[in-house]
Amino acid sequence: MAQPHPASTTTPLYLTGNKTGLQEFLDKFDVFLFDCDGVLWSGDHCFPGTVETLELLRKNGKQVVFVTNNSTKSRADYRKKLEALGIPSTVEEIFSSSYSSSIYISRILQLPENKRKVYVIGESGIEQELRSENIPFIGGTDPAYRRDIEPEDYKRVAAGDPSLLDPEVGVVLVGLDFHLNYLKLALAYQYVKRGAIFLATNIDSTLPNSGTLFPGAGSMSAPLIMMLGKDPVALGKPSQAMMDAIEGKFKFDRSRACMVGDRANTDIRFGLEGKLGGTLGVLTGVSSKEDFVAGPVRPLAFLDKLSDLLAVEQQ
Amino acid sequence: MAQPHPASTTTPLYLTGNKTGLQEFLDKFDVFLFDCDGVLWSGDHCFPGTVETLELLRKNGKQVVFVTNNSTKSRADYRKKLEALGIPSTVEEIFSSSYSSSIYISRILQLPENKRKVYVIGESGIEQELRSENIPFIGGTDPAYRRDIEPEDYKRVAAGDPSLLDPEVGVVLVGLDFHLNYLKLALAYQYVKRGAIFLATNIDSTLPNSGTLFPGAGSMSAPLIMMLGKDPVALGKPSQAMMDAIEGKFKFDRSRACMVGDRANTDIRFGLEGKLGGTLGVLTGVSSKEDFVAGPVRPLAFLDKLSDLLAVEQQ
Repeated sequence: MAQPHPASTTTPLYLTGNKTGLQEFLDKFDVFLFDCDGVLWSGDHCFPGTVETLELLRKNGKQVVFVTNNSTKSRADYRKKLEALGIPSTVEEIFSSSYSSSIYISRILQLPENKRKVYVIGESGIEQELRSENIPFIGGTDPAYRRDIEPEDYKRVAAGDPSLLDPEVGVVLVGLDFHLNYLKLALAYQYVKRGAIFLATNIDSTLPNSGTLFPGAGSMSAPLIMMLGKDPVALGKPSQAMMDAIEGKFKFDRSRACMVGDRANTDIRFGLEGKLGGTLGVLTGVSSKEDFVAGPVRPLAFLDKLSDLLAVEQQ
Repeated sequence: MAQPHPASTTTPLYLTGNKTGLQEFLDKFDVFLFDCDGVLWSGDHCFPGTVETLELLRKNGKQVVFVTNNSTKSRADYRKKLEALGIPSTVEEIFSSSYSSSIYISRILQLPENKRKVYVIGESGIEQELRSENIPFIGGTDPAYRRDIEPEDYKRVAAGDPSLLDPEVGVVLVGLDFHLNYLKLALAYQYVKRGAIFLATNIDSTLPNSGTLFPGAGSMSAPLIMMLGKDPVALGKPSQAMMDAIEGKFKFDRSRACMVGDRANTDIRFGLEGKLGGTLGVLTGVSSKEDFVAGPVRPLAFLDKLSDLLAVEQQ
């Protein structure tokens, strides 16, 4: 659960309708990191004013970064999703947990020469981002893994048959997989048991869709966590591995960056633990005013809705 | 983890080669509950003397009960497995976690008239035992559930479409399922979220096979435990729900019953927490002499191997 943070015990500023306060807040930052669902849109519905607010920020020279834990989409896929919602963006502005995972594997992990392959539980978004970093992988959407476990598989696994357990696998990366099955879990367990590093794109237990919840990426890791008795290194929010990867790419000054989100325990915590200059909560998603004002993890400031920022332009 | 038990802090009796001690031990009990793998056999290999030891017990008027957490097999299936290993048994002597679950649902849970159906994640062993107790069920091995989740499923689930979410389901029962998939997990989550009772046949995280480990029944529950933030009522060892079910069937005097097992933390704990008159450890499985003599959960007595009991007959 969230750890109390020094900055989180102060009372956040309520900036809706406070034109001077808003202007002062904006002037403090060069970079705005956005959580997406619950901030810019909800489900398939873009909030009124989202596009104009992003325009305002860009016009004032602010760097905008879209930060998402969704691992099933590549950045290119995600840009299309933004476009479909009417939100202009570039691939370079998007930071997803699958991209974060790829950056972490290629630039931070020091894998031995003969242990460079990644065994993937997940969808094509992960595969695309691994390819973009030239990381060899197996598993993922390969139809060869979409089958039942067979009696001979038990003996092949026990014997370490290299046609089933690739000896070059040094990393297991688990993200949301709509085609999860027993065989995939059995192989992932064996790889980690034999020394592979256990990574997860993110550990959100649930995935919101159509107003209810479905199994999230964390639920794919859950059987392995139980079997292995250990947690994966998680690359999505609120893991600071994700913040490090974002900083590695955008080279920003953390004191001049602000995380914007609707969830205290993930988004705001992500910004606080990353020692960003600011955090901004919005009330259009999961957390309530009560959470922001009196909870264990509090933003520097909060708004009723993101588009309240537009007040700085009004006469 | 195992809770220390008053009886577990004493030093267990080592009975191998102690003919008088063995005879005194046997005389204390009318019923012997046996864990199977690691006690009677290992994998596909029956230990020498297993058949003769069971014969000796029966000949001396002892009730023998085979207690297994394996939920994929019905009692009839399990009897065939015993037969294949050369061990005579009757269906009535077998107590499996799928049977225990069925007994619990039919005789202990008080389900409302319109909430009597069980949604099953598991294999045919569970289905056979539910049928034996006349419990209506859906899911399980039904091929209709062996498919990918489709875009329209999200909306159907959110809307509570009765053709996908049966309104009569009042129990979700999760056992080992070699055909686990995303759709099955999504539906199980929704049923519990909507009020169904969350049961697991057993929560062993792993399943031994061919000298290594594969995902166990607990790993099927793990995603749901993470999503729901709560544990199921588990019916296998060391859950006392299983002991209650065994007692309900055999009507034995607990003070005259002995649990025999190779694992301190499950088998011996099961007997101690069930306040049986005795527990007997054997060293042919998971736990070591060190575990039995100095661990947090200690049996009343232990043997190198089960067939050491045969010494009572030797001249």
